[in-house]
Formats: sequence, C-alpha cells, structure tokens
Amino acid sequence: MISIVLLGSGNLAHHLCQAFSKSAKVKVVQVYGRNKRALKKFEKFADTTLDLTLLKPATIYILAVNDDAIKPLSMALMEKQGLVVHTAGGIHMDVLQHEHRGVFYPLQTFTADKEVDFSAVPISIEAHKKEDKMLLQDLASSISSEVYDVPSSKRMKLHVAAVFVNNFVNHLYAIGEGICQQEKIPFEILQPLIRETADKIRSLSPEKAQTGPARRNDADTMKQHLSYLENSTHKQIYQLLSESIIKNYEEKL
Amino acid sequence: MISIVLLGSGNLAHHLCQAFSKSAKVKVVQVYGRNKRALKKFEKFADTTLDLTLLKPATIYILAVNDDAIKPLSMALMEKQGLVVHTAGGIHMDVLQHEHRGVFYPLQTFTADKEVDFSAVPISIEAHKKEDKMLLQDLASSISSEVYDVPSSKRMKLHVAAVFVNNFVNHLYAIGEGICQQEKIPFEILQPLIRETADKIRSLSPEKAQTGPARRNDADTMKQHLSYLENSTHKQIYQLLSESIIKNYEEKL
Repeated sequence: MISIVLLGSGNLAHHLCQAFSKSAKVKVVQVYGRNKRALKKFEKFADTTLDLTLLKPATIYILAVNDDAIKPLSMALMEKQGLVVHTAGGIHMDVLQHEHRGVFYPLQTFTADKEVDFSAVPISIEAHKKEDKMLLQDLASSISSEVYDVPSSKRMKLHVAAVFVNNFVNHLYAIGEGICQQEKIPFEILQPLIRETADKIRSLSPEKAQTGPARRNDADTMKQHLSYLENSTHKQIYQLLSESIIKNYEEKL
Repeated sequence: MISIVLLGSGNLAHHLCQAFSKSAKVKVVQVYGRNKRALKKFEKFADTTLDLTLLKPATIYILAVNDDAIKPLSMALMEKQGLVVHTAGGIHMDVLQHEHRGVFYPLQTFTADKEVDFSAVPISIEAHKKEDKMLLQDLASSISSEVYDVPSSKRMKLHVAAVFVNNFVNHLYAIGEGICQQEKIPFEILQPLIRETADKIRSLSPEKAQTGPARRNDADTMKQHLSYLENSTHKQIYQLLSESIIKNYEEKL
C-alpha cells in the first residue's frame, strides 16, 4: 500500500484524489490546503488539514499546487522521510531539494465538475533515485495505463508542445467563436469540424493531415480572408500561421 | 425524388455520393469527373462520365470541385434547366451566373477512406430564389439534421473561422508533433490532451476554457518556453498567440 499526502486543493488535486481512491494499491491519508472551503470536497476521501505542521507520515508527498508555490511549499517538507514530488510539466525536478525527489506529471487539462478517465491520461514520471522511480511507476500505473519515463529537460519541452496543442489551440477556437458571434451564427456550427480535426490525427500525422489555403499556397483566398478580419491581432495570426504552413511544406518539397 | 448530377470526383464528391445513396429522397443520376481512375469508385452509385456534353437532366447540379474550377465549370452548365450549386465555403454564390443558383456547403473536413457520419455534419445552404432554397433545405435535411441558412457574406466569414479552428489548429498539432519528434517522445502522449481540449468546449465556451501561462500572464514561464524553441517561426507564433491571449483577457477585465 502506497500512502499519500496530497498538498493542494485545486482541480488537479481533486482529480488525483478521486483516481487514487479507486485504486486498491494507494491510500490518500491526508490532504493539505490553505482554503477551508476548497478542502471540503476532499473530506469524503481523506483527512484534511489547513496546518502544515500537522502533516502525517506518508510514502509520497504530492505537491499539486501552482508552479510558484512548489518551491516554498517543498521547503516546509524538508524534514519529511518520504518521497516528495511535484506535478508541474514546466518545472525542473531539482527545484525540490530533497534527496528523495521526483515528478509526477499527468498530461491532461482538468476542469472542475468534469470527470476524467484517468486510465487514459499519460503520466510522465521522473525521480532522482532509481528506487523512487520504481515507486512512482507503481503509483502511476495504479491509475493509468500510459506511464512515460521523461527526464526534466525533455519534459519541459514537452510542456511547451502541450501549450501549443492545448492553450493555443483553445485560443484559435475562441477566435472562431468570436467570428461566429459577430456574424450571429451559432458556434455549434463549428463543433463537428473541431472534433473531426482532433480525431483525424489519431490515424493521420498532423503534418500529412494539413489542408487549407496556406497548404495550397492559394494567395487569392488568403488575401480575401485577411480582408474579412477586422481585429488586427487576428490578421497577424492569420498571416503568421499561413506563412509558417507555407514554409513548412516548401521546405519539404 | 430529387435527382442529382454531381460534378467532381474528389473526397467531398465521394462522401456526398455515399450519403445521398442512403437517402430515399435523393438519387444521384450521374457523376462527372475529368479523371477516369477517380471516377471508378463512383460506378457503384451512379452513371459516370468524362464528357461535359453528355450530362443528364437533373433537379440539382452540384459542383464539388476546387474553388478555381467552379466558375469555368459552371459556364458549361449555362443551358441546364436545374438548380446549380457549389459547395465551397469561401466562394460567393454569385460566382454562378444561373438564375437558379445556390450554395450547399458541408462544414466538415473530409478524408479519403474515412467514413463520415453525415447526419452530424452542419450544412450551410443559400439560394437566389426562394423555391430553390426550399429544395436545398429538403436535400440537406435528407442527409443531415443540422441545416443552416447562411447568406454568402456571412458564410465567407464563417469559412475564415473554419480555417482558424481546422487548418491553423492542425498546424499547431504539427508543431507539437515536431517538438515530440525532436525530443524522441511519442506524439501519442499528446493525443488525450488534444482530444480533451476539443471536447471541453462542447460544454464550456473556449473563452472561458482558456488556461496556460499567457492566460495567467506568467512572464517567467513564457520567457522560459521561448528559450526552448529553436525554430524562429515557432518562437514568433508562441509570442503572437501569447500576446493575443493576454490582450483578450486584459480587455475583458
């Protein structure tokens, strides 16, 4: 049995707590948070505390907090015997100063009130000590079938890739939504296209799946599209992404 | 019974032909194409021809061809009695010079060999004459439950929105794939995140779903991410999209 103290009371902490609670190999013994109200929803899973000096002993301490809070919070755990890990894609493992340190990074976007099937969430793990990596492997595979061994240097670049395919993609959705609002067309009209675009690359590499005016280097259509865009930042985005596509396929001719 | 002559032998023509063949209200009487080999796969659905002078009479002539081919091909149909429509999101209806003209635009991305559930594909229709619009409404609703009445001016802007959420989104996927390749991490690790990002906005507006370093205006993380990107165009894309996100949420404070 792997005993866990979870530090953090946000979306990720909550989803992790739910996932661990379904595993027979893991027991969350305590959840620490600074916000009494946020801690409420953890009470059915584990003991909760607002007091860092009252943390229980555990095999693993998991920091599921904002990037900025990782270092200061980890300092409060310097005397602990267990393995201390953070869950942030973009933060180096060595921000933690414990001999037994590691990273447990679930590569997914988590929304409050939307259940996640953790078995399909890729978890990227790393540890300073070999035996700790095996422990994290056990922990990760108790909730997910996709466990990857990724060192900090690679993981931090992977995190940039995640920003492109998640945060930036969502922003393009928002631009599409804005155009629909302006034209008084329901955004729902774009949803099947959005889903199919995401679905397509399960069987076809995005590089091969590329279509559109820029892929064809269709200057007339691109010029016309630019004339329709009123927002100057959106114009710039249209231009830059089109140039990037053109360049990408020119280079590969 | 609505009789159809389909002009074009590409992906869209093929998917339309398959969808119409399942409808009892529609009969594809002929498919015209310039490419004998491409026409082969239409033979099980309808007569095919390589000769524009041999087109059969039909209720509707559907031009499912490249944007550039619409106008010249439509000229060859000037003597026809039926309704002539094109299927291009970005082309004005009036490129067609027929009195009975219209647009039948399925808002989806079509891939060869990947079947599409047409019942969920939004179809945007338009016609110069009221009775022709009713005919297109009948045709569209025979294969899809999502039919929208969208005039050319709006549809052409909708088409730009589609470029953002499909072509540009796919390019961001390709950038993510490229980073994975460079780091020798399987691209599969990003797939659940990609799917969830697309899935999330079915219940949450993309504007509200926005997360990430730019949304938090986290300058340190953005600076670090930029330092990881080697490709100068990718750096520019990272910067521009981040600025756009920051600006978007500043304005809405």
